[in-house]
Amino acid sequence: MSLSPLDSDLYRGLLGDPAIDTLFGDAAVIARLLEVEAALALAQAETGTIPREAGAAIAEACGRMAVAPAELGPATASAGVPVAALVSRLRQAAGEAGAWVHWGATSQDIVDTGFVLGAARALKRLAAQLDAVIGLLADLAEAHAETVMVGRTRWQQGVPITFGLKVANWLDPLLRTRDDLAPVRARVLVSQLGGAAGSRSALGARAAETTRLMARRLGLGLPDLPWHSSRDRMLTLGAWLASLTGSLGRIGQDVVLLSQMEIGELRIAGGGGSSTMPHKANPVAAEMLVAASRTSAGLLGTLAQSLLAEQERSGIAWTGEWLTLPPLVGLAGGALVNARRALEGLHVDAGRMAANLAAGKGLVLAEALTFALARHLPRDEAAALVGQAAARTSTEGIQLVDAVLASLPPDIAASLDRDTLADPANAIGDSAQLARATAARA
Amino acid sequence: MSLSPLDSDLYRGLLGDPAIDTLFGDAAVIARLLEVEAALALAQAETGTIPREAGAAIAEACGRMAVAPAELGPATASAGVPVAALVSRLRQAAGEAGAWVHWGATSQDIVDTGFVLGAARALKRLAAQLDAVIGLLADLAEAHAETVMVGRTRWQQGVPITFGLKVANWLDPLLRTRDDLAPVRARVLVSQLGGAAGSRSALGARAAETTRLMARRLGLGLPDLPWHSSRDRMLTLGAWLASLTGSLGRIGQDVVLLSQMEIGELRIAGGGGSSTMPHKANPVAAEMLVAASRTSAGLLGTLAQSLLAEQERSGIAWTGEWLTLPPLVGLAGGALVNARRALEGLHVDAGRMAANLAAGKGLVLAEALTFALARHLPRDEAAALVGQAAARTSTEGIQLVDAVLASLPPDIAASLDRDTLADPANAIGDSAQLARATAARA
Amino acid sequence: MSLSPLDSDLYRGLLGDPAIDTLFGDAAVIARLLEVEAALALAQAETGTIPREAGAAIAEACGRMAVAPAELGPATASAGVPVAALVSRLRQAAGEAGAWVHWGATSQDIVDTGFVLGAARALKRLAAQLDAVIGLLADLAEAHAETVMVGRTRWQQGVPITFGLKVANWLDPLLRTRDDLAPVRARVLVSQLGGAAGSRSALGARAAETTRLMARRLGLGLPDLPWHSSRDRMLTLGAWLASLTGSLGRIGQDVVLLSQMEIGELRIAGGGGSSTMPHKANPVAAEMLVAASRTSAGLLGTLAQSLLAEQERSGIAWTGEWLTLPPLVGLAGGALVNARRALEGLHVDAGRMAANLAAGKGLVLAEALTFALARHLPRDEAAALVGQAAARTSTEGIQLVDAVLASLPPDIAASLDRDTLADPANAIGDSAQLARATAARA
Amino acid sequence: MSLSPLDSDLYRGLLGDPAIDTLFGDAAVIARLLEVEAALALAQAETGTIPREAGAAIAEACGRMAVAPAELGPATASAGVPVAALVSRLRQAAGEAGAWVHWGATSQDIVDTGFVLGAARALKRLAAQLDAVIGLLADLAEAHAETVMVGRTRWQQGVPITFGLKVANWLDPLLRTRDDLAPVRARVLVSQLGGAAGSRSALGARAAETTRLMARRLGLGLPDLPWHSSRDRMLTLGAWLASLTGSLGRIGQDVVLLSQMEIGELRIAGGGGSSTMPHKANPVAAEMLVAASRTSAGLLGTLAQSLLAEQERSGIAWTGEWLTLPPLVGLAGGALVNARRALEGLHVDAGRMAANLAAGKGLVLAEALTFALARHLPRDEAAALVGQAAARTSTEGIQLVDAVLASLPPDIAASLDRDTLADPANAIGDSAQLARATAARA
Repeated sequence: MSLSPLDSDLYRGLLGDPAIDTLFGDAAVIARLLEVEAALALAQAETGTIPREAGAAIAEACGRMAVAPAELGPATASAGVPVAALVSRLRQAAGEAGAWVHWGATSQDIVDTGFVLGAARALKRLAAQLDAVIGLLADLAEAHAETVMVGRTRWQQGVPITFGLKVANWLDPLLRTRDDLAPVRARVLVSQLGGAAGSRSALGARAAETTRLMARRLGLGLPDLPWHSSRDRMLTLGAWLASLTGSLGRIGQDVVLLSQMEIGELRIAGGGGSSTMPHKANPVAAEMLVAASRTSAGLLGTLAQSLLAEQERSGIAWTGEWLTLPPLVGLAGGALVNARRALEGLHVDAGRMAANLAAGKGLVLAEALTFALARHLPRDEAAALVGQAAARTSTEGIQLVDAVLASLPPDIAASLDRDTLADPANAIGDSAQLARATAARA
Repeated sequence: MSLSPLDSDLYRGLLGDPAIDTLFGDAAVIARLLEVEAALALAQAETGTIPREAGAAIAEACGRMAVAPAELGPATASAGVPVAALVSRLRQAAGEAGAWVHWGATSQDIVDTGFVLGAARALKRLAAQLDAVIGLLADLAEAHAETVMVGRTRWQQGVPITFGLKVANWLDPLLRTRDDLAPVRARVLVSQLGGAAGSRSALGARAAETTRLMARRLGLGLPDLPWHSSRDRMLTLGAWLASLTGSLGRIGQDVVLLSQMEIGELRIAGGGGSSTMPHKANPVAAEMLVAASRTSAGLLGTLAQSLLAEQERSGIAWTGEWLTLPPLVGLAGGALVNARRALEGLHVDAGRMAANLAAGKGLVLAEALTFALARHLPRDEAAALVGQAAARTSTEGIQLVDAVLASLPPDIAASLDRDTLADPANAIGDSAQLARATAARA
Repeated sequence: MSLSPLDSDLYRGLLGDPAIDTLFGDAAVIARLLEVEAALALAQAETGTIPREAGAAIAEACGRMAVAPAELGPATASAGVPVAALVSRLRQAAGEAGAWVHWGATSQDIVDTGFVLGAARALKRLAAQLDAVIGLLADLAEAHAETVMVGRTRWQQGVPITFGLKVANWLDPLLRTRDDLAPVRARVLVSQLGGAAGSRSALGARAAETTRLMARRLGLGLPDLPWHSSRDRMLTLGAWLASLTGSLGRIGQDVVLLSQMEIGELRIAGGGGSSTMPHKANPVAAEMLVAASRTSAGLLGTLAQSLLAEQERSGIAWTGEWLTLPPLVGLAGGALVNARRALEGLHVDAGRMAANLAAGKGLVLAEALTFALARHLPRDEAAALVGQAAARTSTEGIQLVDAVLASLPPDIAASLDRDTLADPANAIGDSAQLARATAARA
Repeated sequence: MSLSPLDSDLYRGLLGDPAIDTLFGDAAVIARLLEVEAALALAQAETGTIPREAGAAIAEACGRMAVAPAELGPATASAGVPVAALVSRLRQAAGEAGAWVHWGATSQDIVDTGFVLGAARALKRLAAQLDAVIGLLADLAEAHAETVMVGRTRWQQGVPITFGLKVANWLDPLLRTRDDLAPVRARVLVSQLGGAAGSRSALGARAAETTRLMARRLGLGLPDLPWHSSRDRMLTLGAWLASLTGSLGRIGQDVVLLSQMEIGELRIAGGGGSSTMPHKANPVAAEMLVAASRTSAGLLGTLAQSLLAEQERSGIAWTGEWLTLPPLVGLAGGALVNARRALEGLHVDAGRMAANLAAGKGLVLAEALTFALARHLPRDEAAALVGQAAARTSTEGIQLVDAVLASLPPDIAASLDRDTLADPANAIGDSAQLARATAARA
């Protein structure tokens, strides 16, 4: 059943990433809760908080237990968390050691640490996918560093750029996203162990050491303080995810725009067919990138409401996180899948790029011409002259460069090379080197 | 698997309503798509757009087909919608009539109409649950019309009210929500049939009549125009849902506040126990009401982004709806379940309400005393005198009414009846009648 | 000074409507607070709650007072509302009657009613502007009911429609928005008078009658109950505003898309020039429509958080409304201004529309041809044949209709009229009549 | 005029910070645009892109010019940005050098760099205020490291903690916020200089060097690439702001909860009075912290929509930033002001904290007692025994510790010290040391 398309067998493939979906399934969630209980017990055995053999027995029981999610459903509905019901089953499974299960911990310790473990694994997958996308973009930027196309600003043709520069602009924020992975991991991937109200009151004399050992066993960092009501780390994670998905969404948006038939500079091979129009190839993967971004942006705002956790532990803000953070992870995973789909299937039509440049009668060279003339005339005269020439291109149907040359004093006109001026490749500024430099940063 | 707790076997019982969840499961979604294809075929047979026998054969095939959701997954991932893959199976199932399946329709016609059918059924369930909640609140308002308690404003004790008035305030917006059901249904529950670009171009000469007949067969209203890119109706639905959930969330918030141990005026029987603190009874159902509201508010904002559907049909805005509207329905369903849980298990402690009133040394009577004195003194003198008396209650530990009487000129003091002034029940204004009038509106 | 562009002398003209801005300026806000105090006093004089002459004197003082907003700033910063400081000035201004000022009311009564008055005036302006926009759209739909153009779905050329149908789709949701004005007004434009905690405890014996009279004096409706903590009406208003702005934003989005130079079917005369590219005419008004919509959508979600008002009166949720609702009004006002700008300056290039249709080698006729053939061949054969022909159009550079005819059995080909099939005007379905019918609804 | 309370003379003091407000006023915005034009001209003079004397003349004119914001309003409304109109005035002011003004730059270069300069100054103020708040919290955590109080979880009394630990939890996320300042600055505070489409096409041969020099003159960092359509940095800034405001909001929420009269553990001196209830002292500053957080969370989500900037420069996404980012800065500024107000005026009532602990009949010691008994009994027996004793405290009105001791086997009971068990100060776990350690981190 599925109220979210991310959980639907019908729609999951469109918007999700199976490798991420699995990580947040009920079975994986429960397995991680048990993983945390095991690490806690082993750490407590090591510090002598519980008997040494109890630690081993509990860990063994955790590894062995199989709990059907639905079995814990009713108790979760009444308690608000599945931990008490799970712990009671674990106590039975652990036999005599059962009395030492979950010693001094609170439900939130287990659920938060379990979520962080899931996030750690999800980040690993996202990082690998991000590397793949970065690789694709770097190759594309490099390959098209000098492929001249129209730069479009505020929905209008502006000046020539290269496709490589455009791709560099897609890539650039993703490089920052990649750079941020390390600090985000260091910040977010920390264990939680505070006991009932964050004071570790029932964790015994060696609570700090237990906390350290539990974190180490789980491969997690150690927070300065339990963070039951300090949820800024979750916002850090959410913002990283929404930024990633948003930067991918922006690629999707450019792709849909450039794959409009009238522009036709890009096309995603194997795009979605229409049930009624045989000639169509909808840029589905690119659309999904945009849809995922817009939804992620909204989820980020909702997640930020959960900073307002009341007192020592909040059932409200915390549940709010559960409703927003996993979908943010899922959408990021799906966006990376769709980004790969779009980029691996991307057909770049350099001919069409050149044709679109040519079709505009050289109007995109207006800026370049103005600056060229400004070496010979006062700049405002140059600008005015180009402006008038631009008006003539539409009325008279001639190329801008010719209209400009025709209206110049002969001596100046003679000093200028028409073909140089008319070639958009001479007006791309630093496009090629910026494209290559960005590809090199990847 | 579940990226949304609403789809999780572990968490669904905490936040959802099984009767709603089922309606949005993949199986139900597919069944509705087939229901729409059947209605379309029958309507087209009736108007002679397709052969009469083809209509019947298609409808029969729709009723008979069983399609596993996962089977349609890959095609959905590539096309962005499951309809083409479903239609191709349906064509096979319908044998010779297969050629007439989905005649002139576009995928969005089927998906939108199918969603609307699901919404119609969900609204039926929500309406019934809302009636139940309204009934519970009306009884409570009536029963406690005269149960005096502290009114609290801006986190401070204000003046006395009755619990019945508070409940009336919970109930009042829900009555408007109920009133809005009819116009929302009339607005939202309409069919979609526009063909490829909303012009009904391939629906044949009797397109309008086909549209009318299809809507009638499905029990849906008829829109003035196909609404592929006019998504305001979906926002209308979303706003109704978020308003419902928000009004329930506000009840939850009052319940958690009044069930704080130091206040103790309300308690939800059977509240969530703690894994480590045996004395606790967490107001889980009430917390979930608040969590659901905050998330729904966010989803509403994200849904509103989907008004920006581009051109004749948008894959972006549309997918954005899928990510937000079903969760809004699911959260509303769960909020109604939790509201019933909270209200059916609600224990109202009138004694504690009285005790909390008394504990404040009568400070909540400050306004009433000021207005009583203002019949004898200029109002600012009255206010000043009560203000000074209020200061004395804390320093000298006496009741406000006594501090006030002590500082009055003897003749005025003599004309006032201490016990009348000291009884909060005399300071509740119209609380009781407003409570009863609101209950009567239910 | 301005943290919001809506309040900036620099940016206000870009995003706002001066007629709305003025309504929410500090001076207007204070004037309305005084208007409410006056109405309250007069109503109370009429019911004998305060002396008859006091009512007149207070009303007179309200009309006469001039308070500089900054004067009330410090007291507002400490009290959270400006009412106490304003009332204290009003008491002085009213002389002897001063003691009867604000009798039994709470600050929120005055601020809420004052806001509703402002909303009433804003709605008047918005309604008039909406009528103007509707008029422009109706004329456009009528004028272009038969102007054939490409219908675009999921970013690709789909089938022919008319520009009139597109405009009808812009218009259709706005007609619902207009229809909703009356119920929104009835719901939202109600007075607030509940006293300290909503029980009218200090409003005297004739509180209900006072409430009725105050509302009547202000031209407002009468709520069933004070609504200090029942904020659903404000969400109703916000949702109406966001829906209006969103429906306008969608027009803006279509306009920016169709004014891309490569498409060139629409142009806004007098568009924004570039500081460096003389040939550009940015579709600024249309861009602003989209920007306003996206921001309004977000504000709506944030506003919905304010449904969660705690207890009898909330300083938190209420302040949250102040931060979201006026900007929603302002953005709606500005969106209407920009919609008029865009539509009044809209240049429709029917020639370009025809050229774009023709440029696609008739591929947009694929659906029509399929359905035409399906009268002679089984539908899947027809679809397959058109699909193959579509592939040939790009490789061989011929028109789709010719590719189709060439591959048909001669007898069938002979029975078809090439020119009829090749004319997109024969494939617009009900476009023209839907356009005209929608214009007629306006 | 003010559609945002942040721009209102009435409300600004309640929600804003004058030092921030001034930075975003129109005058300051225009001054920064001129500052950027000056830096650009000087950098271009240095690289020989424009004549050396032109650089000086332009910079001098920038410093000298006075432009009334309203003067630029109409041109801004039509162009979407104020730069062209400003540049035209600057050209006049610069005399002969005028031709070299804004050489090769695009409007967005100037506006973005100007905004970043404003952000740099705002961050300076916010950092100073944050340090002050951190200092207040550190002192408070230190001073109350051992002040025992009830820890409250999920709206119920949990186990004893110290107020110092609570304050440490308020402080902890703010320390991370402070730590993040340096990376946020490094990331966000970079100049923008890309020319018309980000290729620096008209900036001349030494564009890279010009860019470097301009950034250095303005004290800004150098981005790897122009970032016209790569807006992730703005989201980084917004997320930092929303996290700051949210962490302050959480303090506000705890303060309002603990200042409820029935709890009374905290009070803000000089809280807001009521217009009608003389005894009230509303925790206005704390309420404003919560209101600011909830609105900031929403704005963050809306800001994230602006990651979707189309093509080489977007008028839509960009304008969306203008509508969200300055309010986020303003709300953060105001939240810091309100946090100082709340904390500087905070009255901590340790007596009331002790009394609230005592009032609960020692139920908050349930966990501690369970763990104490678990040294002598199997844990489940211990838990059951404490659970039964907890039930008796309410029915029989005795202290939990006595009920527990009474039900123990005499030998075990004899081995336990009642007073030690009954003292909450023995059940605070690591509260004191965690409080002190956190204070030390500050």
